[in-house]
Amino acid sequence: MKTSSEIERLIALLARLPGLGPRSARRAALALLRRPDHVMRPLAKALAEAADAVRPCVQCGNLDTTELCAICMDRNRTPSRICVVEDVGDLWAIERSGVHRGLYHVLGGVLSALDGIGPEDLRIGSLVDRARAPEVEEIILALSATVEGQSTAHYVAEALESTGVAVTRLAHGLPVGGELDYLDDGTLEAAMRARTSL
Amino acid sequence: MKTSSEIERLIALLARLPGLGPRSARRAALALLRRPDHVMRPLAKALAEAADAVRPCVQCGNLDTTELCAICMDRNRTPSRICVVEDVGDLWAIERSGVHRGLYHVLGGVLSALDGIGPEDLRIGSLVDRARAPEVEEIILALSATVEGQSTAHYVAEALESTGVAVTRLAHGLPVGGELDYLDDGTLEAAMRARTSL
Repeated sequence: MKTSSEIERLIALLARLPGLGPRSARRAALALLRRPDHVMRPLAKALAEAADAVRPCVQCGNLDTTELCAICMDRNRTPSRICVVEDVGDLWAIERSGVHRGLYHVLGGVLSALDGIGPEDLRIGSLVDRARAPEVEEIILALSATVEGQSTAHYVAEALESTGVAVTRLAHGLPVGGELDYLDDGTLEAAMRARTSL
Repeated sequence: MKTSSEIERLIALLARLPGLGPRSARRAALALLRRPDHVMRPLAKALAEAADAVRPCVQCGNLDTTELCAICMDRNRTPSRICVVEDVGDLWAIERSGVHRGLYHVLGGVLSALDGIGPEDLRIGSLVDRARAPEVEEIILALSATVEGQSTAHYVAEALESTGVAVTRLAHGLPVGGELDYLDDGTLEAAMRARTSL
């Protein structure tokens, strides 16, 4: 196809975004090109500005424009509970739900022999340091219920043993609104084992 | 959620791309923020450059960086056949397939009473002018097989009547690889009516 190199480059870059394949990248490029001043230039500006301003929080690893992120600086949050997440996307998900009023610690991934990610690639050392602070009482491991997520949880729990803080993990069970019929055996087993009295 | 306004703005703008909802826009923003130098800055640059450079071809309406687009300027293409498409996305689709070696004419939409798009909103006048050129022999209407697309095709065909050029439209029928069982009645009827001898 004979399109200008500017358009081709734009499509190639858009196609690298998660959720956009080559086909939808073309559609997105076209939508942008149709309204250069409404979306395209503002998006270019927003990207450049965010690339300049946004960086990881030095304490928890959350993304923000300040050295300490807004959550770490918020005096209204409970510093005694630190929620450990795999990445910033998971932190955002928990923040949206509003179920956690404490602080966070972003690991930066999970242990994975397949992807060559070992303990030294994750922010475990700084978590142990934070757990030693006198105000910290509980570390909540909010990691995915996958094999990698759970083996990471076990590894982190062991690393935290010497600190003496309570280490918990999210409950496994039926997702709210989920139908029993459609559940996999693993979830069903976990839900049965962790049954609670009414 | 307490994210910086830079990140919020980026997510809001990404969510306006077709194919990205609020959720996938967040994922895309996160993927960008993770690698600012690999994708984010190049994308910002590509967007700004394309917004500056790309404009509609003065002859056919295709998007390119030159006054006449690369297709209109290509001496190896057949100027006797002009393929009429709804928008540049359709032009790209036909170019990818390689089935058309002539020129194009982008209408800029289809007639739609619902969306308030009348004949004066489409590039029909300039098509009639082009059709009057002595080298033009055939106008191929490659419009969608929807009610709007087909009524636009009829309108354009009527407008072209005075020029004396042959006006054709794409065949309707079974999509290649399509199973009869899953076809709608309209397609089946069109395919039956336009059956060809073996």
